[in-house]
Amino acid sequence: MIRTVFFEDQKLKILDQSQLPMQLAYLTCASVEELATAIKTLKLRGAPLIGVAAAFGVAMAIADYDGPSHGLEAYFQRVKSLLASTRPTAVNLFWALERMEKVFLAKHSAHQKELALCLRNEAENMYAEDIKINQAIGEHGQALLNEDCNIMTVCNAGALATCGYGTALGVIRSAAIRNKIKRVWVCETRPVLQGSRLTVWELMHDKIPLTLITDSMAGYTMSLGKVDAVITGADRIAANGDTANKIGTYSLAVLARHNNIPFYIAAPLSTLDFSLSNGMQIPVEERNPEEIRQLQGIQLSLPDVDVFNPAFDVTPNQLITAIITEKGVIEKPFGSELKKLKQS
Amino acid sequence: MIRTVFFEDQKLKILDQSQLPMQLAYLTCASVEELATAIKTLKLRGAPLIGVAAAFGVAMAIADYDGPSHGLEAYFQRVKSLLASTRPTAVNLFWALERMEKVFLAKHSAHQKELALCLRNEAENMYAEDIKINQAIGEHGQALLNEDCNIMTVCNAGALATCGYGTALGVIRSAAIRNKIKRVWVCETRPVLQGSRLTVWELMHDKIPLTLITDSMAGYTMSLGKVDAVITGADRIAANGDTANKIGTYSLAVLARHNNIPFYIAAPLSTLDFSLSNGMQIPVEERNPEEIRQLQGIQLSLPDVDVFNPAFDVTPNQLITAIITEKGVIEKPFGSELKKLKQS
Repeated sequence: MIRTVFFEDQKLKILDQSQLPMQLAYLTCASVEELATAIKTLKLRGAPLIGVAAAFGVAMAIADYDGPSHGLEAYFQRVKSLLASTRPTAVNLFWALERMEKVFLAKHSAHQKELALCLRNEAENMYAEDIKINQAIGEHGQALLNEDCNIMTVCNAGALATCGYGTALGVIRSAAIRNKIKRVWVCETRPVLQGSRLTVWELMHDKIPLTLITDSMAGYTMSLGKVDAVITGADRIAANGDTANKIGTYSLAVLARHNNIPFYIAAPLSTLDFSLSNGMQIPVEERNPEEIRQLQGIQLSLPDVDVFNPAFDVTPNQLITAIITEKGVIEKPFGSELKKLKQS
Repeated sequence: MIRTVFFEDQKLKILDQSQLPMQLAYLTCASVEELATAIKTLKLRGAPLIGVAAAFGVAMAIADYDGPSHGLEAYFQRVKSLLASTRPTAVNLFWALERMEKVFLAKHSAHQKELALCLRNEAENMYAEDIKINQAIGEHGQALLNEDCNIMTVCNAGALATCGYGTALGVIRSAAIRNKIKRVWVCETRPVLQGSRLTVWELMHDKIPLTLITDSMAGYTMSLGKVDAVITGADRIAANGDTANKIGTYSLAVLARHNNIPFYIAAPLSTLDFSLSNGMQIPVEERNPEEIRQLQGIQLSLPDVDVFNPAFDVTPNQLITAIITEKGVIEKPFGSELKKLKQS
């Protein structure tokens, strides 16, 4: 299994996803600032992975701190704020930082070395847990699928978006092991092409049959009767089940509904945000217009054209057939079912 | 007004749209074979323009013919077949070739020079007619729009897709003259990017306010209440109103319906194919997978990834609010209304 983030010589190594599928290269982040830049520039992406990588970043920062001990707590807060500011939509980031803060507050009177070790252990635990969570999501999700399934997905909710195995691709992997997957339709996912670059790479690596399409072909492919289910990941799920995910997910959900195709979200419970009653309250990140105007330095449109570049959209709960979590498959009404899960 | 195709020194000049928006360059087609290649490789595209350009190609071929006069008719048929084989979906191509054949058959006993002149006149007439038709489409279409309209469109159904003014963009132009256009949402239109390259260029040239989005952002933009109408062109309309147009059009129609937004097709009557009772019978062109795997020589995905690359999709008549033609706006039931129009 490919490691997406790890420590080496007290520095963080991250798999540089911006170079895939052409190169499998690791980037060294020698400081938490370098990690923050890597997250902002999508060298490392995927809601669950962003959370765990931020946890590793906190551990590194505290280990490297060389100021007076009375300044440590303020420094921790600065590190937390820096990492929290990298991406606004995926809630796993904030969840992971809160979890690290709990360890910090419980242990911050300890010697700095011991504290740093505790934080690093917590990050490593989160890494290992994430893989187990994904495998559980995979198991629960595959049970929803019949033989010879044609699945459509968008973006990359795979091993590369997590610590391994993946959420939506975890379901597809678990189904493929049982020979349930006939074909995966991969939407290329403009503007950053996580589908054609990352999901294609992962599925070809695992020898799972796939066909690549542009995002604009998803509806037509469904209308031809070639899709049995749509499965995507999630960046944040509100208390009522409304789900923020990669831009284009909402369109897939509407198109799936129109074509009577089940639409599934696969995500760990850390994606849930019970503080938001509905999806309208989820902040949607808008990114640099150049992501649409240019591609790898090639000008695609006029340099001064006005651009709208939301990185995510929000799919209302009515369009979601079920949410696949590590604790099981949640069906409607999502509000009460999610609440039960929280209390369980 | 920019000329998209014209004669110069007995050769055809075409505006090379593959170089837009970076360069406004003309390509010389010295033979009908060169024109056929230019159409196949999308240097010249747009259903109405393909038809008129093919008519010019026929005129050039007959003028240049230097074989025995008894071979002229067989040669005409070869030229017709060659041009008809360039693109299978847009029906205007076949309509234009039929129209040229009528002139050829009526005049083919005339001297070759006279015949060539008649054919050239017919092509020039078609060119001039197309502009008038587009202006009539624009007039009829703008009447459907209120003040401060936000319009979404896909691909390029503009001056570049026609002999001038455009179909969907003709409606937008006519509405803009009356200050009815607040903003045009331009879908970039993967894989060939006719939206971000051509429609952006045309609208900026005319100073009509626009915002560029990826195709995957169309649904989210509609869900935000930022779209008052969707208007697209058409490549072929079946007798019942089912419409083939650029891939992604069907998705826009479904998304518009879900969001209670009117969805309009703007097209000349030459786009109608009464020989097909419904859209299932429209042949949908599949193009080279490299259009999705690569962009201007840059590898976007793995070189051996399986790809589905339909250039068009079919929107069922139920999803279409109205079809805007040069003879007026057609509403449901399309079957009988289109039939009336044919007989009028």
